[in-house]
Amino acid sequence: MEDLRNAIDAFIAERDWEQFHSPKNLAMALSVEVSEIVEHFQWLTEEQSKDLPPEKLAELREEIGDVMIYLIELADKLGIDPVETAKAKMAINEQKYPADLVKGKSFKYSEYE
Amino acid sequence: MEDLRNAIDAFIAERDWEQFHSPKNLAMALSVEVSEIVEHFQWLTEEQSKDLPPEKLAELREEIGDVMIYLIELADKLGIDPVETAKAKMAINEQKYPADLVKGKSFKYSEYE
Amino acid sequence: MEDLRNAIDAFIAERDWEQFHSPKNLAMALSVEVSEIVEHFQWLTEEQSKDLPPEKLAELREEIGDVMIYLIELADKLGIDPVETAKAKMAINEQKYPADLVKGKSFKYSEYE
Amino acid sequence: MEDLRNAIDAFIAERDWEQFHSPKNLAMALSVEVSEIVEHFQWLTEEQSKDLPPEKLAELREEIGDVMIYLIELADKLGIDPVETAKAKMAINEQKYPADLVKGKSFKYSEYE
Repeated sequence: MEDLRNAIDAFIAERDWEQFHSPKNLAMALSVEVSEIVEHFQWLTEEQSKDLPPEKLAELREEIGDVMIYLIELADKLGIDPVETAKAKMAINEQKYPADLVKGKSFKYSEYE
Repeated sequence: MEDLRNAIDAFIAERDWEQFHSPKNLAMALSVEVSEIVEHFQWLTEEQSKDLPPEKLAELREEIGDVMIYLIELADKLGIDPVETAKAKMAINEQKYPADLVKGKSFKYSEYE
Repeated sequence: MEDLRNAIDAFIAERDWEQFHSPKNLAMALSVEVSEIVEHFQWLTEEQSKDLPPEKLAELREEIGDVMIYLIELADKLGIDPVETAKAKMAINEQKYPADLVKGKSFKYSEYE
Repeated sequence: MEDLRNAIDAFIAERDWEQFHSPKNLAMALSVEVSEIVEHFQWLTEEQSKDLPPEKLAELREEIGDVMIYLIELADKLGIDPVETAKAKMAINEQKYPADLVKGKSFKYSEYE
């Protein structure tokens, strides 16, 4: 992760792209890249989405790479460590969704709280 | 990252939530969480987005955690390592956007290629 | 539609909100509202999504209203008539996806072209 | 609008695409099309977004057409009239955001309520 963050920083700096990479714009770019993932799945059944042909997987690999890159960059700009933050969020989720209460149920926050 | 992936797996298994977590559904959940990030920035100027008050940052920390969690889970379901994939994508980007050609310009794929 | 566009204009003007409603920001707001629709469906099966309980439908009605409002406002800011534009796009789609070639197949642009 | 809805229905029926167009899938498709709008704006300043070159506008016209088409189709599948619903939502918004309280301020729901 440290290597990756440094590689992203260098890539942006060499291209003089900091001027475009405000947190606002990075949030937009992140959402655009995630939609490219969604696009692959929009007409598939859930079952089909579990068993993708290799060429689809190769494309998704690139999209997931793009999402990861923008997520790391956005987090970095905000002074947030995405891995530590995800771990902290998992601890919150453990409290929020007690296994014995939500087992086998698909709750939305608002429906459960 | 390894710890995080294991924690997510255990969390899902304890709640019997695999049945809801098809790649298709995870792609949707990922896009919903990213929109919660976008929502924080939609009415801010780019300048304001660079200098957020602490309570906004605390909320964004949670949203970024959520995005990271779903991204890891989706990638895992597809047999993709998100960090390795992001590194590979950075190498592609280095070729695709030669620093001397794109310096200081905000190109979209389609406009550049 | 004309009444609706006028009501939106007046609503924005009375609140002095033009300053926030650049096309860039309206595109973000539109995507956030669409995600609120997606959120309702993320853990449902396709079958469940065809037969929603009344309280879900009531919530979706509001989200669809929000999306329509932002879409009209964004189109208006860009000098675009959304209904005429949709009609023109349908004519393009008729050419792009000849019924005899695509019947019963879920093509993405890139896969078909 | 009535003509447009009928044209969309006929287009789908002729291609035997009802099988793919569950509300869940249409919500995904709607979000993908909205992201194509967002993509046009992601690296622009707000000022630039107000003064687009003709070729950008032509592309946005098509994206807005696509969003309108999917929104009408999704609403139709749910038995919702998008124009009536938007009017009803405007009436709610008038109550929710009293002009004298929110004038010149960009409130999010949660911050205002």
